[in-house]
Amino acid sequence: MTDRRMRLGLSLRGLGYHIAAWRHPEVPSAGSLDFRYFLNSALAAERAKFDMIFFADGIGIRDKDRPPGALARSHKNAELEPITLLSALAPMTTHIGLVTTASTTYNEPFHIARKFASLDHISGGRAGWNIVTSWSDAEAQNFNRDSHLDYETRYERAAEFVEVVTGLWDSWEDDAFIRDKASGLFYHPEKLHVLNYKGKHFQVRGPLNSARTPQGRPILVQAGAHEAGREIAAQHADLIYSGDHEIGGARAYYADIKGRLARFGRAHGDLLILPALVPFVGRTRQEAQDKLDQLQALIDPLVGLSILSSMIGDLSVYPIDGPVPDIGDLAIASPGRLIVEQSRKRNLTIRQLYETFGAGFGMRSVVGTAEDIADDMEEWFTTGAADGFNICPSHLPHAIEDFAALVVPELQRRGLFRTEYEGRTLRENLGLPPQRNRHGSYGKAAE
Amino acid sequence: MTDRRMRLGLSLRGLGYHIAAWRHPEVPSAGSLDFRYFLNSALAAERAKFDMIFFADGIGIRDKDRPPGALARSHKNAELEPITLLSALAPMTTHIGLVTTASTTYNEPFHIARKFASLDHISGGRAGWNIVTSWSDAEAQNFNRDSHLDYETRYERAAEFVEVVTGLWDSWEDDAFIRDKASGLFYHPEKLHVLNYKGKHFQVRGPLNSARTPQGRPILVQAGAHEAGREIAAQHADLIYSGDHEIGGARAYYADIKGRLARFGRAHGDLLILPALVPFVGRTRQEAQDKLDQLQALIDPLVGLSILSSMIGDLSVYPIDGPVPDIGDLAIASPGRLIVEQSRKRNLTIRQLYETFGAGFGMRSVVGTAEDIADDMEEWFTTGAADGFNICPSHLPHAIEDFAALVVPELQRRGLFRTEYEGRTLRENLGLPPQRNRHGSYGKAAE
Repeated sequence: MTDRRMRLGLSLRGLGYHIAAWRHPEVPSAGSLDFRYFLNSALAAERAKFDMIFFADGIGIRDKDRPPGALARSHKNAELEPITLLSALAPMTTHIGLVTTASTTYNEPFHIARKFASLDHISGGRAGWNIVTSWSDAEAQNFNRDSHLDYETRYERAAEFVEVVTGLWDSWEDDAFIRDKASGLFYHPEKLHVLNYKGKHFQVRGPLNSARTPQGRPILVQAGAHEAGREIAAQHADLIYSGDHEIGGARAYYADIKGRLARFGRAHGDLLILPALVPFVGRTRQEAQDKLDQLQALIDPLVGLSILSSMIGDLSVYPIDGPVPDIGDLAIASPGRLIVEQSRKRNLTIRQLYETFGAGFGMRSVVGTAEDIADDMEEWFTTGAADGFNICPSHLPHAIEDFAALVVPELQRRGLFRTEYEGRTLRENLGLPPQRNRHGSYGKAAE
Repeated sequence: MTDRRMRLGLSLRGLGYHIAAWRHPEVPSAGSLDFRYFLNSALAAERAKFDMIFFADGIGIRDKDRPPGALARSHKNAELEPITLLSALAPMTTHIGLVTTASTTYNEPFHIARKFASLDHISGGRAGWNIVTSWSDAEAQNFNRDSHLDYETRYERAAEFVEVVTGLWDSWEDDAFIRDKASGLFYHPEKLHVLNYKGKHFQVRGPLNSARTPQGRPILVQAGAHEAGREIAAQHADLIYSGDHEIGGARAYYADIKGRLARFGRAHGDLLILPALVPFVGRTRQEAQDKLDQLQALIDPLVGLSILSSMIGDLSVYPIDGPVPDIGDLAIASPGRLIVEQSRKRNLTIRQLYETFGAGFGMRSVVGTAEDIADDMEEWFTTGAADGFNICPSHLPHAIEDFAALVVPELQRRGLFRTEYEGRTLRENLGLPPQRNRHGSYGKAAE
């Protein structure tokens, strides 16, 4: 063992990642609009020394009501907005990182640069931005469009967006603000840099009306598995949330991303890769399986079919406990076709198929004792598949409490995870290098 | 006396409204990026039973560097972003309203509807949105434009913007979310209303991915003195921040606005008008004057000239303690011409002229004992000029501490101001009627 440690994020998505989380008897079903509910989970994660909490986000209700009636039985309809929510969590916590998604497709870079800079100041250096593009028509229709932008345009716009935001964050050198009451000079004019960005999608003069932040700049997170996303990540990101289900694929992805870093003058450890993981942990394997089974039994068949609808098509005319039908005349894209073929090979029923996706919004799940889950994580961590994990709890707050009580001590016992925070800022705790201002001075983290 | 009470807001602008606030020996000059600094002021205001705190905002550094060097001597360059800041203040406070400006010119209504709804949920019903249009080229240049939009377009866009935002806030009826674990129904589909807005500036489908808020909707604030702004205010606003300096003009404005309400089916008390007030209070008149004089002496002449520059033109070639020059060949608009004429009539020097504006960013100031200031406020309040005041403290936190210690008890003694909060939400404390959902049910405040 070197002293390399796992990085752990906690993804707080509504009431949990299990599609039926809200129906669990112990889950407060109004929690997704209740600040105290999220505060409890954030504090549980901080007590367990997690690196960060993370909110995925969509700017609208993305799910289609297919089959009809499914949407009204789903809990992803009304949530707190994550930038306001993380800001409210900031003064109630002390060490945990505060990361959220914000779309480059329907935002303006000046607003995003400013809000994340402000969150970084308020939290004392704990802000992170997960850079995404928006792919759904439902979101497009909330922003003056009929349908979503094509892939090329989205990623071209995203690349410019990141350039503008990081440029604005470097508007002021670290020691620009002298605030000398005697002379009356508030800042050194030569330490202010006007961006004057002119691109195809954006024209932004700047400067940002905020000082350089405690982390130098907020942490940049990416989740793109596509080529354009990988390049943006390798150039700019501090962290990647990935989604591989098999360790082989995860290793290949890890090697590919790490291999791109040198071209941008970055070292192997400058970008951390955290695959998603949905843990079902029990004191025995049976207890863990019971926890999963309890949730699976709560999936409304309409909601289960709605998951399959977006991937495969409408299966509501088939018996739910019968086999996944031959695709025949279903017009579906190749990922869906692959799912159908594999399901038929494994003799899955329709119910069993939607349960595999419903368990964690399609993320990889592991069911077992603390030792089982730690074994799995250790293998990924030590064999080039992961620098840590983005833990996606099935239902809140219980699944995070279980993980903190059972799995975290096991990881600590093995020397794989911290027992105390190393630094004050998220960047320090992640072990990332100080962020240099492009105009020549270092971020405050380096002082 | 009826039991009508004054409404008091506290405007927290950077380090205070006096242009030299940052140079005051007791002001922490790095405070505008320090969350704890604003928290202290917010808590002081809450202890004094203020209705709300308010952050004015600009999306960029609006001031021009005229005369050259003035900008680096001003403290309005780097601040916290107010939506993140108010969200962070929400869980640290219990009763005080949380209001900020957000521009309709360079935002999207879906984002604004969502963020203010979320702040209303997080704060338990204390959010307010000050609706403005953005008039500066400096802001336009941060949002893909060379110059600002014309007045007509700005207000046309603002009117649509408010329609979309208020429409989105009514997406869900109050009792839409049933969350019935037994049946699996999360919401009643018939209580969800899709907006489907199609206007000239915006096309927004909705619904908002947030439930109706604790106040029914956040409080709407307006500051427009122009015709278009007055109409939007009379139709939609709960509150107006106004800026008259003379009681006569304030009464005329008050009567005009209140007179428009009936056309929109609203009562006299449904819209509150709060003129700005910069108080300099002392235990004696001399002490109050000394406090003002201390700050006036700290105005850097370059900064003083920069205030005049935007209103009149460049006066830097004239002796600062000489008379305000005849306008002669200065090409200025009529408000500037009026200022010059009046200054010359009163024999003001250039220094004396910029001091009158520097004392409170152009807002009306009153200097005197607690009795003097309470007399002034009582006259405005009881003779049809105001429903309360937006207090703009000269320097923070001392000016708000002085006002709370001296003026508030005097207002309470006269029965003009509350001694305890009446309700839980901002709407309840302002005495405003419950906000009805357009689809037929009442806001939670009415339950």
